[in-house]
Amino acid sequence: MAYKSDIEIARAASKKPIQEIGAKLGISSDDLLPYGHDKAKVSQSFINSVQGNENGKLILVTAINPTPAGEGKTTTTVGLGDGLNRIGKKAAVCIREASLGPNFGMKGGAAGGGYAQVVPMEEMNLHFTGDFHAITSAHSLLSAMIDNHIYWGNSLEIDTRRVVWRRVVDMNDRALRQITTSLGGVANGFPREAGFDITVASEVMAILCLSKDLSDLQKRLGDMIVAYRRDRSPVYARDIKADGAMTVLLKDAMQPNLVQTLENNPAFVHGGPFANIAHGCNSVIATTAALKLADYVVTEAGFGADLGAEKFLNIKCRKAGLAPSCVVVVATVRAMKMNGGVAKADLGAENVDAVKNGCANLGRHIENVKSFGVPVVVAINHFVTDTDAEVQAVKDYVAGQGAEAVLSRHWELGSEGSADLATKVVETIEKGEADFAPIYPDEMGLADKINTIATKIYRADAALMDQKILNQLKDWEEQGYGNLPVCMAKTQYSFTTDPNERGAPTGFTIPVREVRLSAGAGFVVAICGEIMTMPGLPRVPSAEAIKLNADGDVEGLF
Amino acid sequence: MAYKSDIEIARAASKKPIQEIGAKLGISSDDLLPYGHDKAKVSQSFINSVQGNENGKLILVTAINPTPAGEGKTTTTVGLGDGLNRIGKKAAVCIREASLGPNFGMKGGAAGGGYAQVVPMEEMNLHFTGDFHAITSAHSLLSAMIDNHIYWGNSLEIDTRRVVWRRVVDMNDRALRQITTSLGGVANGFPREAGFDITVASEVMAILCLSKDLSDLQKRLGDMIVAYRRDRSPVYARDIKADGAMTVLLKDAMQPNLVQTLENNPAFVHGGPFANIAHGCNSVIATTAALKLADYVVTEAGFGADLGAEKFLNIKCRKAGLAPSCVVVVATVRAMKMNGGVAKADLGAENVDAVKNGCANLGRHIENVKSFGVPVVVAINHFVTDTDAEVQAVKDYVAGQGAEAVLSRHWELGSEGSADLATKVVETIEKGEADFAPIYPDEMGLADKINTIATKIYRADAALMDQKILNQLKDWEEQGYGNLPVCMAKTQYSFTTDPNERGAPTGFTIPVREVRLSAGAGFVVAICGEIMTMPGLPRVPSAEAIKLNADGDVEGLF
Repeated sequence: MAYKSDIEIARAASKKPIQEIGAKLGISSDDLLPYGHDKAKVSQSFINSVQGNENGKLILVTAINPTPAGEGKTTTTVGLGDGLNRIGKKAAVCIREASLGPNFGMKGGAAGGGYAQVVPMEEMNLHFTGDFHAITSAHSLLSAMIDNHIYWGNSLEIDTRRVVWRRVVDMNDRALRQITTSLGGVANGFPREAGFDITVASEVMAILCLSKDLSDLQKRLGDMIVAYRRDRSPVYARDIKADGAMTVLLKDAMQPNLVQTLENNPAFVHGGPFANIAHGCNSVIATTAALKLADYVVTEAGFGADLGAEKFLNIKCRKAGLAPSCVVVVATVRAMKMNGGVAKADLGAENVDAVKNGCANLGRHIENVKSFGVPVVVAINHFVTDTDAEVQAVKDYVAGQGAEAVLSRHWELGSEGSADLATKVVETIEKGEADFAPIYPDEMGLADKINTIATKIYRADAALMDQKILNQLKDWEEQGYGNLPVCMAKTQYSFTTDPNERGAPTGFTIPVREVRLSAGAGFVVAICGEIMTMPGLPRVPSAEAIKLNADGDVEGLF
Repeated sequence: MAYKSDIEIARAASKKPIQEIGAKLGISSDDLLPYGHDKAKVSQSFINSVQGNENGKLILVTAINPTPAGEGKTTTTVGLGDGLNRIGKKAAVCIREASLGPNFGMKGGAAGGGYAQVVPMEEMNLHFTGDFHAITSAHSLLSAMIDNHIYWGNSLEIDTRRVVWRRVVDMNDRALRQITTSLGGVANGFPREAGFDITVASEVMAILCLSKDLSDLQKRLGDMIVAYRRDRSPVYARDIKADGAMTVLLKDAMQPNLVQTLENNPAFVHGGPFANIAHGCNSVIATTAALKLADYVVTEAGFGADLGAEKFLNIKCRKAGLAPSCVVVVATVRAMKMNGGVAKADLGAENVDAVKNGCANLGRHIENVKSFGVPVVVAINHFVTDTDAEVQAVKDYVAGQGAEAVLSRHWELGSEGSADLATKVVETIEKGEADFAPIYPDEMGLADKINTIATKIYRADAALMDQKILNQLKDWEEQGYGNLPVCMAKTQYSFTTDPNERGAPTGFTIPVREVRLSAGAGFVVAICGEIMTMPGLPRVPSAEAIKLNADGDVEGLF
């Protein structure tokens, strides 16, 4: 059997006008701000008007630690959404937007795959509805206003060596990582060291994704620390008087985007913060709006459950008052084999023992998620090479962990293949066992919070923080930031800080290299390893092959 | 009588759904790509489908040299468009898009004014349909790919001291004018001097505005010179293999934007290149599409007629095969008085003699435009303080120049006030006297072209070019660029290079400081004075006062 590529399937999609998709959720044409015929923003006034609705049930899709075999978290999110609609439930999907820049380095990412995709795929990998451009603009305005303030007399007494606000561009441009600005004489300002990150790493992105509404957005933007004075006191974006104009630049971007799955079910695609130095989930406003409009909302979090689900639950749910009713942990037979020690080239051959050995990684994630008080369903995302015995091995293992694993074939069959998973998820939710709580309270000290995640989620012996870091955390506690959650920046490939340590390792520590305060987003970032906030392009960037063909279709992007 | 502000009038507009505006031009809903309910792009496929239509008549609106009194060129363009519709003609307006960045320095610009405006005004001053963001992205991709090429071995042997491709951002950020990039060690590349311009100064902007279609766009992007080797041979964007991906990033931006006037008549707002280092007109594709859809198309060019109309006629019309049927030169009584020596504070008092003295500036523009073989109508854009005697003085002067001046009151009355102007323009066109030709042939040498403009349009004794500049022009001629038109970069406030020289000066020369080759856009820029390609923010940027008010409206932008 020959399989079609994701892009072939996406291009063959029978898309419906976005107004018809909106109508499924009770959104009138007037309340949809169209961007072309297949994308729209849902108006803020409509969102305000449905705040009295009862909330639907929230389902988080997360995964084991990613392996090169691929797990299909977004694919499962989309497939589960379609599956729920197939079994007669009113369901919507909430996922993140893609970053434009990286698509010109490596090939662009589909939103899902096979017959479980969100469309229009090309536009979602290009400008989409302009949200990220708006974030870049808002960020750049603040950047310009900071140096402009210094230029015109620096009445805030900013220490130009301690400007912590970096610039951003939505492009992989390593040449901009570290630069010297304001050269060329008096007319251009005071030379200083500076640098660019990629737009998705902007604190503005994290804020947009965590804000409840426009006034919350403006408050958080104002709260951002942009620089310090010689006496180490912080200078805020509010002091620069940039928060109002930034909010104006972001007012459209704050409205969630509505698109559709291949099966014409509603999908919100909104926001896309980094999953390391930020929390890695789609916007709070999209999730909370979807919960007012659908009975079931399926969403996902970046990376594996140790990072993505942990942040979704400890940061996003805590801040937005969300409580998931069920968590789906995605695993594949192939990934279990890799966790069990099989090399990528050998994944095609049946190896039940390796599957069993690799299940320890899955088991720890199940246990972790349950510790938040939320029931778990494991989705085995089916690959064509999986054998019945291998699948059964996973199912048996999961049953032994007090959960249930369901084989799902949405990639190949769409909702026909995910109906069983959807049924199991609904059953699980209807048992009403979910009793969500974050695993640490607001009041806990910052160092203790880091330690709690390291020991309870990663199962490290401890988080290692030197005195300088402990002092910094203490300073922030004294400044009133002690109640913030922590955002761990660690490799996604392992529970440890070593990306090669698969499975469920023990007997390790988590060294914290640096801590950063995102005062507007509202979390303290603990950096445990190398974190790249401005990628570079590879030797042969995918951009070299991207072009329009004679039919006007985009070639080379996928 | 109390007058409403532009923004009050714009907010009170009775906008129609953009589909109704499109229908006036025969564009179906399917062929309109909506951006919200009041903006849309016209699909490329629709534009292709109407290429067999006969062309409408093209009317250029230009003006005397700008004075602080304000002339109202865009206002007259919009008013004339509405006036033509009022007298039963099928007319459309074509104007430029606004740049986002500068609105955060000084207050944003209306598209027109009073009762002759294009709406939605706020969105046109913010992200609009994202065209400028697409240009920034395409430009940034090429920037990243150049340094990436150098990083991975520099097989094209680019001399890193001779990278002429600067970066861009759509923000007034003087700190980025001159920077050093790629600092921080091996992983970040080879340090070199670089800098940012504002997006509208990008050659990509000029190219987008001059390209006939997407394949023309890609060819021109490929033709751009990005750097030189040690042997001074040029390296093109095509060599970097960026042209295909840049075209993909620009494919939506190439489709013209349709909005409406306050009177619900169609207005194309598309592209916005600098009027100094570029040609300063809206896109060729918008103008040519409008000509296929309307019987009369009213467009404008940046700055006064000596720069704007000259470039429109010698560059845009030449390249796009356009031939205007009539040129409207906008003048005001107040501006005539300033040209006649009256200070801005004294403009309120009647002063017929000063009006008469100032008319020399208008007279020279009339004569210049006629030298292109196109008939001229002068529009006296009425201000409330104008007296009958002053208006009559202008009319008498213009009659003596073999043209006719019509008082137009569109600012105050909309199309009711511009119907006379519209009638006169139609009468003029129907005489069929237009016989347009550029004032210099392609074959003329580059230095002679510069000299022709300086002597025939500015009435200078000569353009002064030193040997270095002459050699450079000769080199380009030898490389095959001799057939390009020249794009003059000079102050807009005077025929001379001194912005304070009003009226119709004689006995001066035009010193050419520098020449630049825009090989993709297809012109040679002759720089005659200080040209700023990256503005800074003022001491108190308008951004400080921009915010959303309690009703969700934008405050402080206008």
